[in-house]
Amino acid sequence: MEAQKTNKIVSFVGGHNGEWKVSEVVPIIGSTLTTPNYLSIHKNTLSPETEQASDWVLKGFASNLRYTTREEKNILDVNPSVLGKVENQFAVMIPIKKKETWWAMTQDERRKILEENSRHIEIGSKYLTAINRQLYHSRDLGEVFDFVTWFEFSEESKTKFDELLAALRKTEEWSYVEREVEVRLVKMQ
Amino acid sequence: MEAQKTNKIVSFVGGHNGEWKVSEVVPIIGSTLTTPNYLSIHKNTLSPETEQASDWVLKGFASNLRYTTREEKNILDVNPSVLGKVENQFAVMIPIKKKETWWAMTQDERRKILEENSRHIEIGSKYLTAINRQLYHSRDLGEVFDFVTWFEFSEESKTKFDELLAALRKTEEWSYVEREVEVRLVKMQ
Repeated sequence: MEAQKTNKIVSFVGGHNGEWKVSEVVPIIGSTLTTPNYLSIHKNTLSPETEQASDWVLKGFASNLRYTTREEKNILDVNPSVLGKVENQFAVMIPIKKKETWWAMTQDERRKILEENSRHIEIGSKYLTAINRQLYHSRDLGEVFDFVTWFEFSEESKTKFDELLAALRKTEEWSYVEREVEVRLVKMQ
Repeated sequence: MEAQKTNKIVSFVGGHNGEWKVSEVVPIIGSTLTTPNYLSIHKNTLSPETEQASDWVLKGFASNLRYTTREEKNILDVNPSVLGKVENQFAVMIPIKKKETWWAMTQDERRKILEENSRHIEIGSKYLTAINRQLYHSRDLGEVFDFVTWFEFSEESKTKFDELLAALRKTEEWSYVEREVEVRLVKMQ
């Protein structure tokens, strides 16, 4: 048989060990997640033992950009997001589920709400140097959440990060969010 | 642990048994696939035995529309695609891989080539009543192909189906295809 080429699915495992200590789990919209002690990130297929021993597992894949235009991408590319920087001792994982009405919309309708009305990309681009981030898609894997968003930043950028969240949560786009949880993390030394 | 909610990944298994008899495997662009005797479609996780016994396994998931506008969707929705109709005794599975230059483009650039220049959605919409189809996304699963496209039609629509393929393959969009294989199938009675 011809084998599958690569594994693109990343697993975020809340449990008893990991490179990130969970400082807080904050319910934002809808039901929360159990607060585990640690979070670990797995880039290979999880063993059934790891899954069983965990409080929860959220899966997702990084993908091509779905909404960004060339003009917007040129702005984003000036400050490419890099994960794992030494100075970024803080991370926040935010799983999000959007309403069915969001997914029933067409591309032009979703783009209009996301950018023309909500300025999601424009808001995010103001924080590029301070906040490093990666979006993982989960909905197509049949996961409970549609996305896992991952942010890393330094001690001095904590306020900026909270500003970014507050700005996004005020937008029209956020009226389509039906579940959102913040998992706040500190890197283990 | 909180479990994964549903399985959305569909496996197309070329091998020794299945509900579809393989009549022909036609290489279109790039290297072909082994010609199996049968094709079976699995909506649950494959057993390692099934994978091992197969000639090949192609995986994908159906997803939300990525390019279609509301106006276009309203046209498509007049004739919704239905798989499994009794009169549709023929199917063709076409796995496709697009060039890296396609994936490096932004949403507006891909949309321009797909629809404004290539009329992909418009061409497809002319064949809605005759050709039933479903697109499965594979690239985000780390598969060798980016998509698996699945078509079903009746004996009398075979010519129309070949017309549709010919029209799409003449477009600018198709200059971004680097691998394409046709797997022609007949339903087992």
